[in-house]
Amino acid sequence: MPEPLVPATATTPSRTPAAPGGAARHRPLDVRAVRLNPAGPLGAMQERNAAATIDHCIASLGPALDYFRRVLGESDAPYPGFVADTDVYKTIEAVAWEIARTGTTSRDAWLDETIGLIARVQEPSGYVVTWVQADPAKERFADLEGAHEMYALGHLIQAAVALDRAAGRDDLLTVARAFADLVDREFGPGGKEGVCGHPEVETALVELYRHTGERRYLDLAARMIDLRGRGLLKAGHLGASYFQDHEPVREARAVAGHAVRQLYLNAGATDVYLETGDRTLLEAMHAQWDSAHRRKMYLTGAFGSRHRDEAFGADYELPSDRAYAETCATIADVHWNWRMLLAGDRSAADYAETIERELHNAVAAAVDAAGTRFFYANPLQLRPDRLSEEQAPRERRPWYWCACCPPNLARLIAQLGAYVATDTGDELALHLHADAEIDVPPHLGGGTLRVATAYPADGEIRLSRNGSGDLPLAVRVPSWSPRVLLDGAEAAPDADGYLRLRLTAESTLAFDLAPRWTRAHHRADALRGCVAIERGPVVYCVEQVDLPGDVPLDDLVVDAGAPIEASGDAGAPRLAVRAAVRPSSSDLYRSPRDGDEPPPSERLTVTAIPFADWGGRGGSAMRVWLPAG
Amino acid sequence: MPEPLVPATATTPSRTPAAPGGAARHRPLDVRAVRLNPAGPLGAMQERNAAATIDHCIASLGPALDYFRRVLGESDAPYPGFVADTDVYKTIEAVAWEIARTGTTSRDAWLDETIGLIARVQEPSGYVVTWVQADPAKERFADLEGAHEMYALGHLIQAAVALDRAAGRDDLLTVARAFADLVDREFGPGGKEGVCGHPEVETALVELYRHTGERRYLDLAARMIDLRGRGLLKAGHLGASYFQDHEPVREARAVAGHAVRQLYLNAGATDVYLETGDRTLLEAMHAQWDSAHRRKMYLTGAFGSRHRDEAFGADYELPSDRAYAETCATIADVHWNWRMLLAGDRSAADYAETIERELHNAVAAAVDAAGTRFFYANPLQLRPDRLSEEQAPRERRPWYWCACCPPNLARLIAQLGAYVATDTGDELALHLHADAEIDVPPHLGGGTLRVATAYPADGEIRLSRNGSGDLPLAVRVPSWSPRVLLDGAEAAPDADGYLRLRLTAESTLAFDLAPRWTRAHHRADALRGCVAIERGPVVYCVEQVDLPGDVPLDDLVVDAGAPIEASGDAGAPRLAVRAAVRPSSSDLYRSPRDGDEPPPSERLTVTAIPFADWGGRGGSAMRVWLPAG
Repeated sequence: MPEPLVPATATTPSRTPAAPGGAARHRPLDVRAVRLNPAGPLGAMQERNAAATIDHCIASLGPALDYFRRVLGESDAPYPGFVADTDVYKTIEAVAWEIARTGTTSRDAWLDETIGLIARVQEPSGYVVTWVQADPAKERFADLEGAHEMYALGHLIQAAVALDRAAGRDDLLTVARAFADLVDREFGPGGKEGVCGHPEVETALVELYRHTGERRYLDLAARMIDLRGRGLLKAGHLGASYFQDHEPVREARAVAGHAVRQLYLNAGATDVYLETGDRTLLEAMHAQWDSAHRRKMYLTGAFGSRHRDEAFGADYELPSDRAYAETCATIADVHWNWRMLLAGDRSAADYAETIERELHNAVAAAVDAAGTRFFYANPLQLRPDRLSEEQAPRERRPWYWCACCPPNLARLIAQLGAYVATDTGDELALHLHADAEIDVPPHLGGGTLRVATAYPADGEIRLSRNGSGDLPLAVRVPSWSPRVLLDGAEAAPDADGYLRLRLTAESTLAFDLAPRWTRAHHRADALRGCVAIERGPVVYCVEQVDLPGDVPLDDLVVDAGAPIEASGDAGAPRLAVRAAVRPSSSDLYRSPRDGDEPPPSERLTVTAIPFADWGGRGGSAMRVWLPAG
Repeated sequence: MPEPLVPATATTPSRTPAAPGGAARHRPLDVRAVRLNPAGPLGAMQERNAAATIDHCIASLGPALDYFRRVLGESDAPYPGFVADTDVYKTIEAVAWEIARTGTTSRDAWLDETIGLIARVQEPSGYVVTWVQADPAKERFADLEGAHEMYALGHLIQAAVALDRAAGRDDLLTVARAFADLVDREFGPGGKEGVCGHPEVETALVELYRHTGERRYLDLAARMIDLRGRGLLKAGHLGASYFQDHEPVREARAVAGHAVRQLYLNAGATDVYLETGDRTLLEAMHAQWDSAHRRKMYLTGAFGSRHRDEAFGADYELPSDRAYAETCATIADVHWNWRMLLAGDRSAADYAETIERELHNAVAAAVDAAGTRFFYANPLQLRPDRLSEEQAPRERRPWYWCACCPPNLARLIAQLGAYVATDTGDELALHLHADAEIDVPPHLGGGTLRVATAYPADGEIRLSRNGSGDLPLAVRVPSWSPRVLLDGAEAAPDADGYLRLRLTAESTLAFDLAPRWTRAHHRADALRGCVAIERGPVVYCVEQVDLPGDVPLDDLVVDAGAPIEASGDAGAPRLAVRAAVRPSSSDLYRSPRDGDEPPPSERLTVTAIPFADWGGRGGSAMRVWLPAG
């Protein structure tokens, strides 16, 4: 095990979603120690989450809770949707982080009733999975491929740990531990060999270990990591890679199969590394991180190129129109990146910048301005004639038959404060830039750090210190900013991408947020000949609704040699680019002897809006990647 | 009903797969009237089919036939694979066309045993679907969405009609008519309203009408066309468009959903037009033809852009790597195009050229050189790291769990002769160019027409007449040939794309087969910046195995300004193009401030082979569309 950089003076707070010990070189902060200003986009997400999304989830869970009652014979409710137990658990977790963040008690009665119901449904053995319990014909742990029992346990544990950390309330923890203990008896060391078709319990079990100090939960998680990829799951028509059972975790160098499963699995594998210091696991994670983020990630921070099996594709298989880009995959990747950042084995900058990209784009786009409608899939292009599909509708929907995404958004957004900064023992590292007030850990001098910024609308970040002594700060400088100014003078970040300073009173940093044209790797066939528009961490798109009625979006050719101009207000700036329009043609294929195509004509200025805002005016055709002349 | 062009002297032959009356302006020829030379590619396909594929199918049908025996209590065989009854029927149909073509009796014993078995399994009601009969819990016609009962009937009818036409053998026809009569009683006029989740029975019922003269089979087919698109089928998670139930057939202007279903449906709808002259149906078919072939067809003559639901995508959604391009979809499209050609409402040239493209590319690629291994999906690109998938393996497989494609190939190839020429009453129209001997219909003078050609290896076609009087000929001039020579002099086809001549003794035509660079419509995002290589009707591809080991296929940039050179032997000519190699890069996305990418270097000559031959040397990475510099 490597020597942790974090000295004994740095204690891991309890109210944070991943509270590692062991090999972690970064310590997270308490979610209440980082207070995001609702005037900024991350703070606004939290406010909307608190004001609308969490209660919308609670209101939508009636059928799921009725199905719990069906197990008790108190209801004859029909099956409410795929793995709906976990929608309940994720919503509880969101409520818990909201309690941690604000101390709210407004949902305590709902918690009382819901947790009481879950506890009543729990069998004496500890088992609680309504999909199995409601059907007398179903056996426990008989269908590890499809029944999602340990997956349900994972979300139950996460909710229970969050609630105990947030409110010191352990009734759900008692339920979760009883179920975890059952799984440990059945599948722990000395028990049956089996893993769940949907990884998720691994990261949860490590957190349960951290929270309770019970080593056997860590051992069980490690065993599940070790047993995956050994063919214990019966491969169906989607193949063993669907649930990452095609090769052992330590040997895999590429991410594959169902994207959400892979990314939760990797959060869990990284958690096991964080507690055990097992380098073979970390090396596999490094290789898989490169696979996921350097060859298989959409520009918006989304994952999963295929609808059929909700899966990663091959390297550079990144179609914009058929991007599955499930909201939960991005959320799972936030979890994984955060744990890789905490490990500190490589520079935190890549992980933090990935999380930032994800939050400002794929996550932000997945929920509407009111906080009550959601995208499940987040494609980077909507063709004008594409039919609306169940999990990839043309417009955001209030709920889904498989409703994993909405409550997953709710729990992530409620815990956002945790991802802003870490304590490395000898400095406070700022990873996400957002208007916030941060409690400085006592061993770094205590007091508060005020971060005042309109980022990412503006690149200026004013840091002010309220407390004693110099505060050693490491501030991430985004890779897209060609320079950074510190109090007006050009400054240079260290090789790890962080600018280090000792803050006495006030300092101002400025990043360069000039909009930029982005191109994709030449092997990304779906993106060849196209450019995207980015400004800071924000990816832009063009919607049909912003074009003249006679100009089809798909006939635009933008002038990527011309500058990108600002347009509209500064809060969510619109951008303007020059473009021409290709004449329409009826030939699907043509050869030179068919004559040259007429050149693009009809120059016009085209408005681009943040990808996060697309679809706000109906299911209008949309493109992130624009053909370039 | 329009006035048929075909005079009473032209009688529709019985031994042909679609024998229309009514509104048809073209009459097909008897399959034995067109004898393809095995030295040419179409004739060679037939020889291989006769020598290997049909018997391979028969040998692979053991489990399917055992399942028939299971219904009789003579076996406890497990379910043999999806809708395996139809694999049996399609194989019988292939045997039938082979009897029609050659008079072979070698498979008569297998036919006796198999037809006897089917007849024994048939219930007194006429019902015969093993998937339902083998399970006491299943009810007849209770799951029109998924049980494929009428789909099975369709293939049963087609096999039965073919066998009666080919060999005058009507035992299977008795079985088929009894099942058809049952469906007519249950779902015919006055009966229940219902359509099958998988269209296919419509085209078969029209043929049964043609063969028996029983009008009620035509009425039943027309009723099923009329009832589709009215929400009679319960839409599952794939939506109503999956089985073309989202809008009435006459109102649909775009093809949508499961490609095989749509294309069989359209063959049936066109068949209904051919017998009724219903123009509203034909106008819908014209619009849908344009949708399928001008906006949704792969260059190889394949259909279906999506794996998830085996479906057409949106317009111009044509990813090469994820092309599903199911073999059966191309076969169904051959059926549809042939019926549109027979209708004669628009020029035959587009339909014939489509069929030619399909036969020489998607169909030819779907079977290996030995005739015993098959592709189910026919992508236009294989990425180096793509995992092998169940229905889209990296290499051709001998059989599939859903084995629809191999016997479908067998029946199509056995009937290929029927697609070469038609009789319009006052001329013989040559649609497919192939070395062959053709019996001239008596009212056109009788005798034979000899077509001698190495096409498509060579563009010269020598026509010689053995018979009395001038033969009025209409010869299709391919749209890709910039000129045509008739006996050495430049000649001009008529506006319909056919060159007309009166052949007394001999004439020679020559098409220009110079290889050409092909580009795709600018809205086809997956193909932007790329070129394909075509020569005559043959699409080419480049395989990794033909490149130096240190040159990744996906890093090639071809010089589309340079000529395409011939290379290798004349039979299946290889082509050679100039290319450069892009340096590898680890950046998935980059902006201008990251600096220019180094330019392509390392010039080399790259070999291209016919797409039909790809994968013959292992599952090597492959591309049809090549990035162009």
